[in-house]
Amino acid sequence: MVVNTQISRRGLMLVLSSPSGAGKTSISRELLSRDKNLFMSVSATTRSKRPGEVEGKDYYFVTPETFEGMVGRGEFLEHATVFGNRYGTPLAPVEKALAEGRDVLFDIDWQGTQQIQSKLPDDLVTVFILPPSTKVLEERLTTRAQDPPNVVAQRMAKAADEMSHWDAYDYIVVNADLERSVAQVHAVLNAERVNPSRLIGLAEFVNRLREGR
Amino acid sequence: MVVNTQISRRGLMLVLSSPSGAGKTSISRELLSRDKNLFMSVSATTRSKRPGEVEGKDYYFVTPETFEGMVGRGEFLEHATVFGNRYGTPLAPVEKALAEGRDVLFDIDWQGTQQIQSKLPDDLVTVFILPPSTKVLEERLTTRAQDPPNVVAQRMAKAADEMSHWDAYDYIVVNADLERSVAQVHAVLNAERVNPSRLIGLAEFVNRLREGR
Repeated sequence: MVVNTQISRRGLMLVLSSPSGAGKTSISRELLSRDKNLFMSVSATTRSKRPGEVEGKDYYFVTPETFEGMVGRGEFLEHATVFGNRYGTPLAPVEKALAEGRDVLFDIDWQGTQQIQSKLPDDLVTVFILPPSTKVLEERLTTRAQDPPNVVAQRMAKAADEMSHWDAYDYIVVNADLERSVAQVHAVLNAERVNPSRLIGLAEFVNRLREGR
Repeated sequence: MVVNTQISRRGLMLVLSSPSGAGKTSISRELLSRDKNLFMSVSATTRSKRPGEVEGKDYYFVTPETFEGMVGRGEFLEHATVFGNRYGTPLAPVEKALAEGRDVLFDIDWQGTQQIQSKLPDDLVTVFILPPSTKVLEERLTTRAQDPPNVVAQRMAKAADEMSHWDAYDYIVVNADLERSVAQVHAVLNAERVNPSRLIGLAEFVNRLREGR
């Protein structure tokens, strides 16, 4: 995005993390529909394509061999294994987007965030979404009325583990109200877009102004 | 402002600085009219009250003796002398506002910003407004068609001096379009409101969520 004719901007990576049940997916979806310069990061995965999923939109579907090759060549920004399947974010399309001034949204957990932090720390802006109360969290984690108590308890334990990392994030949004939370995350995105570290040619622009050129 | 029933927030000080002619006053006015939790800082001054000015709204009008007494007791967040008159921001009302979760807007220059930075660095968020081009800056600094060239040149020199400090600010807004600039500064304000350093009781809130209380 060109801020004006003389200054351009490097894109940023906006990470949203949260325990499941905090409403992150709804926030991401709304944000993507409202902001035309924000794009969802697409992961590569070794798991099978499900009906309705689109290659290159939902995922890049790759073989385990291809995936391991990419790991070996350092082509992932972050990667993880979930239920035996491999998932990873290819670096090249993200780097291209950032260079073109486009912003990239990541819906990843704390571990993935840590991996990205170690690779591209300056381009990263992190937001942690919290549920407004234990009651709401339990309601959201109880997907069906007949869920046995121990299943809900397991989900709560996983959520508690993820929430222990809240203090590693730049911003915290307590999601009591979807509209308000979307506005808060959007404010973070728009504020970080005028962070001078992302404005290219700023020093030269100011010099021209100061010299009356 | 109460974020929810369990977390409250400490207010922040939003500083807008710019060379004159960059449109800062218009941005401040719009921002104050749009955001009901943002309040303009009121300065004390030794200069005479002008017709229409209201004590406690435009300024606190004080005698030179009162002013120097306040300086001596460290009651100012920042103070300066302009054309022989003294101006200063009393600390007490600002501290009260911050403690109550209200945000305070400052329209001050780089020197004032430096003074505040040395007193309450954690509560401070700073934005520098730049004009979009030398042409626009010159137009705005030429207040009347008959301004002699050397007067405009003096104003430009002062603007150039102020602009040399752009890199001491947290955010940079290039004011090519008022509506867009107001939105950008408002985004900065709203983003900094969800900076965890300003959320009171957050660690305890997360602990309660994690323990299912």
